[in-house]
Amino acid sequence: MTVDNIAGEAVARVRERVTVSEVGPRDGLQIERAMVTTDDKVQLIEALADAGLTRIEAGAFVNPKVVPQMADSREVLARVRRRPNLRFGAFVPNVKGAELAIAAGAKDLKAGIAASDSFNELNVRMSTEAGVAVMANINAVAKAADDVQILGVVATAFGCPYEGPVSRDRIYRLFGQLVKFGCPVIYLADTTGMAIPHQISELVDDLRRRWPAQAIGLHLHNTRGLGLANALTGLQAGVRDFESSIGGLGGCPFAPRAVGNISTEDFVHMASGMGFDCRLDLDRLIHAAIIAQDMLGRTLPGMVMKAGPASVRFEKGEPSVKLD
Amino acid sequence: MTVDNIAGEAVARVRERVTVSEVGPRDGLQIERAMVTTDDKVQLIEALADAGLTRIEAGAFVNPKVVPQMADSREVLARVRRRPNLRFGAFVPNVKGAELAIAAGAKDLKAGIAASDSFNELNVRMSTEAGVAVMANINAVAKAADDVQILGVVATAFGCPYEGPVSRDRIYRLFGQLVKFGCPVIYLADTTGMAIPHQISELVDDLRRRWPAQAIGLHLHNTRGLGLANALTGLQAGVRDFESSIGGLGGCPFAPRAVGNISTEDFVHMASGMGFDCRLDLDRLIHAAIIAQDMLGRTLPGMVMKAGPASVRFEKGEPSVKLD
Repeated sequence: MTVDNIAGEAVARVRERVTVSEVGPRDGLQIERAMVTTDDKVQLIEALADAGLTRIEAGAFVNPKVVPQMADSREVLARVRRRPNLRFGAFVPNVKGAELAIAAGAKDLKAGIAASDSFNELNVRMSTEAGVAVMANINAVAKAADDVQILGVVATAFGCPYEGPVSRDRIYRLFGQLVKFGCPVIYLADTTGMAIPHQISELVDDLRRRWPAQAIGLHLHNTRGLGLANALTGLQAGVRDFESSIGGLGGCPFAPRAVGNISTEDFVHMASGMGFDCRLDLDRLIHAAIIAQDMLGRTLPGMVMKAGPASVRFEKGEPSVKLD
Repeated sequence: MTVDNIAGEAVARVRERVTVSEVGPRDGLQIERAMVTTDDKVQLIEALADAGLTRIEAGAFVNPKVVPQMADSREVLARVRRRPNLRFGAFVPNVKGAELAIAAGAKDLKAGIAASDSFNELNVRMSTEAGVAVMANINAVAKAADDVQILGVVATAFGCPYEGPVSRDRIYRLFGQLVKFGCPVIYLADTTGMAIPHQISELVDDLRRRWPAQAIGLHLHNTRGLGLANALTGLQAGVRDFESSIGGLGGCPFAPRAVGNISTEDFVHMASGMGFDCRLDLDRLIHAAIIAQDMLGRTLPGMVMKAGPASVRFEKGEPSVKLD
């Protein structure tokens, strides 16, 4: 299936490239309480690669006592098939994690630092500044390895659930440090889904004025239903790098305030429908979302996996009562 | 609680008025299989009015055999308290329905015609053209009554699930007829959630060029997760009238392809956060959403009713594993 011209209308815009990085196997699964088997993780990652994804975050090298779901990341990375144009990533909180990730074959190291001190302290028990120092060390390890790069994340970029709005100065300072590390993309993360659409374009515009050469990505959560609206303003502001989770993985039925990333297939359905070139097979993404859903045994929040893309035609069946 | 300046940032824009019309008690409830009691409907409508809503669609005067959930609309309208600046509406498919609705005290008659012949035939067993003729008769009845107005709806404006894209010519013809009837607002309905964001602004712009004096509203469904993204492009295109359902009512766990309207409180959270003046109390809307949820005994799709608005501050609790 092609989702080009999903509206049946010519889209005048040149088909600009949008890169989607899949973080479901890491950011999606990390909060799941029931252990997902290594076999299941490998199967999901292969299905994601089959859909054409070129960046997949396959795991995290964090303390297995804190995040038991990620304890088998080395094995997952050992078993997934290497393909041309596919880079596997891993989340790493420190140098030890970075060394383990590189040894396991991860090429994209993700390191996140919250712009909010409160949030960073609670998450990794250090200040934002201390986090930057740790990242400098991670960066040195990455630079010494072959074809390894660091992806930066400014977490809580659109607000902290404890502190509220985060000052622009703090964001500029952290972002500027990440630029110095040579991150090919720096993601602005709406960690707990606090962003209101106009804030996305305002922050992106501000950062681009200061660092015009730096690629800015978005890592969005759908906590307050604004994930795709925020992604849309990102696209409008010129952002071309997005992280997302297949099926919207990451929501947790036992913790309604921990809501997943934007759904990969829902985002691709929107962006492709708007004429952007995601180079992904939507049918296969939906297939992967269903694999993830079956794996977890509960309904995932993704919508296109349930309704099908807007291009689907239905047979004329029963009269409905849907009058508007 | 105020949701102005939710970002803690000055929003430069003049606070333009956005009118939200609540359709939950009608479009939301009509597909519910389990009968909602008249008491419950009245309680919900009063809670919605308490939140400041000035337009509430309270029921439908349709064949009770086809839509049994709406069979008590007369009683509902008899029991809800009249307040200044609050207009009750009702969906009416024909003259008989219009007469019953007016007799019951409805002031805003909603009549919907699908731009797609296939859809209109299946829904109301008549062509789009025949639907317009019926609406002319409804209009005559409305005009003869005191302070009664007709709200028009172009259903399937962004695509028909059976036919696919609907031609602009068909939309222009239907919209032009509704303009002639003097509808104060004509809603473009994305009946089965097929719209991709840019299509909203393109159609709104096209119609406004042809009928610059006509107020255009949006009635959006969240079938493919694009409800708020589509609403956002509507706001960007200058639309200031939106219909929505409290809690995102209208989804049905047994029919995943029948997905509800955009959620009133999620939309208001976004629009107010962007600086628009909705004149609604978000806390009370959330309260009404919880009433609707308790009434139906299942989790509703609204997100802000679960997470709270972005302005909520959390106490510092357990360290989380949410690193980005």
